[in-house]
Amino acid sequence: MNYLVLAYVLGVVCLFEAAFMLVPLITALIYKEGSIAVVYLLSTLICTTIGAVLVIISGKNRKIRAKEGMIAVALSWIVMSLLGALPFFISGEIPKYVDAFFETVSGFTTTGSTILTNVSKLSYANRMWRSFTHWVGGMGVIVFILSLLPSAGGSFMNLMAAESPGPDVSKIVPKVRDTAKTLYRIYIGMTLIQLVLLLLAGMNAFDAITLTMGTAGTGGFAVRSDGFDSYTLLQTGIIAVFMLLFGINFNFYVLLLRGKRKQAFRMEEVVSYIGIILAATTVIVISVQSLFPDLFLAIHHVFFTVSSIITTTGYATVDFNLWTPIAQIILVLLMICGACAGSTGGGFKVSRINIILKGVKKEFSTLVHPRSVKKVRMDGKPIAHEIVRSVNVFLAIYISIFVFSLILIALDGKDLVTNFTSVAATLNNIGPGLGEVGPMGSFADFSPFAKLVFCFDMLAGRLELLPILLLFLPSMWFRRNRRIVSQ
Amino acid sequence: MNYLVLAYVLGVVCLFEAAFMLVPLITALIYKEGSIAVVYLLSTLICTTIGAVLVIISGKNRKIRAKEGMIAVALSWIVMSLLGALPFFISGEIPKYVDAFFETVSGFTTTGSTILTNVSKLSYANRMWRSFTHWVGGMGVIVFILSLLPSAGGSFMNLMAAESPGPDVSKIVPKVRDTAKTLYRIYIGMTLIQLVLLLLAGMNAFDAITLTMGTAGTGGFAVRSDGFDSYTLLQTGIIAVFMLLFGINFNFYVLLLRGKRKQAFRMEEVVSYIGIILAATTVIVISVQSLFPDLFLAIHHVFFTVSSIITTTGYATVDFNLWTPIAQIILVLLMICGACAGSTGGGFKVSRINIILKGVKKEFSTLVHPRSVKKVRMDGKPIAHEIVRSVNVFLAIYISIFVFSLILIALDGKDLVTNFTSVAATLNNIGPGLGEVGPMGSFADFSPFAKLVFCFDMLAGRLELLPILLLFLPSMWFRRNRRIVSQ
Repeated sequence: MNYLVLAYVLGVVCLFEAAFMLVPLITALIYKEGSIAVVYLLSTLICTTIGAVLVIISGKNRKIRAKEGMIAVALSWIVMSLLGALPFFISGEIPKYVDAFFETVSGFTTTGSTILTNVSKLSYANRMWRSFTHWVGGMGVIVFILSLLPSAGGSFMNLMAAESPGPDVSKIVPKVRDTAKTLYRIYIGMTLIQLVLLLLAGMNAFDAITLTMGTAGTGGFAVRSDGFDSYTLLQTGIIAVFMLLFGINFNFYVLLLRGKRKQAFRMEEVVSYIGIILAATTVIVISVQSLFPDLFLAIHHVFFTVSSIITTTGYATVDFNLWTPIAQIILVLLMICGACAGSTGGGFKVSRINIILKGVKKEFSTLVHPRSVKKVRMDGKPIAHEIVRSVNVFLAIYISIFVFSLILIALDGKDLVTNFTSVAATLNNIGPGLGEVGPMGSFADFSPFAKLVFCFDMLAGRLELLPILLLFLPSMWFRRNRRIVSQ
Repeated sequence: MNYLVLAYVLGVVCLFEAAFMLVPLITALIYKEGSIAVVYLLSTLICTTIGAVLVIISGKNRKIRAKEGMIAVALSWIVMSLLGALPFFISGEIPKYVDAFFETVSGFTTTGSTILTNVSKLSYANRMWRSFTHWVGGMGVIVFILSLLPSAGGSFMNLMAAESPGPDVSKIVPKVRDTAKTLYRIYIGMTLIQLVLLLLAGMNAFDAITLTMGTAGTGGFAVRSDGFDSYTLLQTGIIAVFMLLFGINFNFYVLLLRGKRKQAFRMEEVVSYIGIILAATTVIVISVQSLFPDLFLAIHHVFFTVSSIITTTGYATVDFNLWTPIAQIILVLLMICGACAGSTGGGFKVSRINIILKGVKKEFSTLVHPRSVKKVRMDGKPIAHEIVRSVNVFLAIYISIFVFSLILIALDGKDLVTNFTSVAATLNNIGPGLGEVGPMGSFADFSPFAKLVFCFDMLAGRLELLPILLLFLPSMWFRRNRRIVSQ
């Protein structure tokens, strides 16, 4: 383990976090929240100091190997959250540090679960910071930061692979840095379009900015205690469509930008993703239609909810805790399914489900025709055996983490539905679940221990399990292995 | 597809079912239930007629290929259940045929879920038949039947593989027929020991026989409407221990009989199985201790429940619907885990979980030491890559069936806990779940459609998914594939 390169990455992350905090600092100045401005000034100073020290003690060696990439990313996210929680805690608006940490992890991981029962009580600056963490976390901080630095070089890929959602990042990264820039351009461009549309639809600037950031990162923090009741149908409609768009594999947009329209619209994952959304919306509309005054409103709210849940955003215009059992079960399944790989959304990812189902199909076909040799294919190309296997291992790890979390959470004594959906909602970075953690509830009531378990789940979910688990592997830290391939 | 060999297998199954029905027929005569005796006489006649016709039209070719083995087993179980439901239906004691079918599938698959709200109302003969189906289903009917017939020959293995629970049947079947006989000797021997012990403990003959059959098959049908309230602690204690014993991989007993004690007690699956039971019992006792008058009773009832749930028997001495959330979650996890492969128990099987976890461990080790080559091992021997893969595929199919069933069941509008645990309880052949299908509830309230879905789940669970799924694959039926390896 090259500890010095870890110090370097962590130091740079701290410095950038200091820079990120200028956004809420400016917000505090605009809204004349003097004491909060001081809090952010102090937090910025702390981040800068720690960051500067770490960068100074770090060596000149900038080589990052695969496992160091994972460890660096996992540690960065934890440090970012520990420091990001400071303003909430120092300002006294979230009195317990564990709650502030939970809220920040929920922000950066774009989960959107909250321990706040009345979000309107927060200062503007803190609400801005909360939503800004979604936007920063959505596309991956470390890649963003390092794409701006000259020194990272070829070992860059190992960081990107550790931070990007989905199994197929290698496909689009012949030149990692260029790809990262293209992705960020798309991300920023779409964010701006949504912002402009919301402003045109008559939303005030603060809500438009914060909600857009929450949509882009598929995060889901609300900024008003009445949720979405005060927005018009047009405004929530725009948000619904953009949630869906941010859940699409960004390769789709890359292909569109390069004029390869046909190829884009043939991407299997995107087709499945849209198909699932349409099917789920149709079934749920049929099931809950009678709860709404007319069919249009039913379609509107169901589409909003489906789009919000499958992309793991977690915004809610209605309390789906009150919907029919079939609708709730479909929502729970959408929670677990999640959005496309290579999007800002979380969850298990549509492409993983595709790959697993294709593996099953292959198994059947082998049973019927034992001599035929078949390869699992995606978008016409055969998938490497390693990817199929690693997707299966992913499933096993996913279930293991789910089960252990469930047992630990159950110690708090809540009901089964709350326990089950709270783990699903955090591990998949969705936000709300059902029962006590439903769209109108919060995670405030859980014990500090349970909140830390949820933090672990949110981080594991956002970083796709492996990096955060590696942190707990003693051999990662203590044993040196000289046989590792140098990169 | 060799339809004639299918007819032969099905015909023999019908003839044997006619013979099995002599047991309740004799019971009816002993308890002087005249009209019920007529019902069983009639049912026996129907089975004999159908069986004779099928055997007569079948050809001389007795070769069974892998896929035909699966189809034959799946069809046999369906036909057995369709015919086995006749006495319940004809006697009028279960007025709807779909309910009678559900009850019989639940019996043969050793699930133990019931649509009866008051089992005491059934005649003795029908209760005996119900419990007898557990005993017959426990070890696999077709293998039992064919082990008695001379004509099956070498293609026997394909039937055994399709019917035996667990991934490793090939290990102990160098001589399939001998193995089958050894297994049946152990099965019958243990059944008799339990029966004698229960009689010595003062249980009346009818209850002792029926409950022993339910324990041996890990079925779980109760024979009194007050459940287990009227039995002594000693009697339920004996049942608890034997549930545990019937959930152990029968290879363990084979090794013991051959004097290989050390090897037996080192079987990883058995060690894990006992470890899980001890751990689960300890945690649940700590959690629900206050619900019992003293510690001894707490340990007694918790051990009984854990043993009943992990072996998928489903007997209940207490209403665990009232236990703490942590206890309920552990029970749900035990439901899904299930007993050992090569036992009469159902569920996902301890060895599969072992294999999956070892695959995960291997993946981590590959990450830390990329150049090291490791094989997944079980009991010291490396596991073939194919088995690891097929276990992963099994997991994927299992989850798919779970999800589709859940959606179909949810159409009935029950609550989430009932839906989730009813599917878990039937797919794993356990019996009771939580909520409406808790140990004091029943499946009576579901729609006929939902009941058929449960029947599918019970059969899929008992036959380990593949055989019953193959039934629905059109290419199994219509296309001939000459490239198949002849056996």
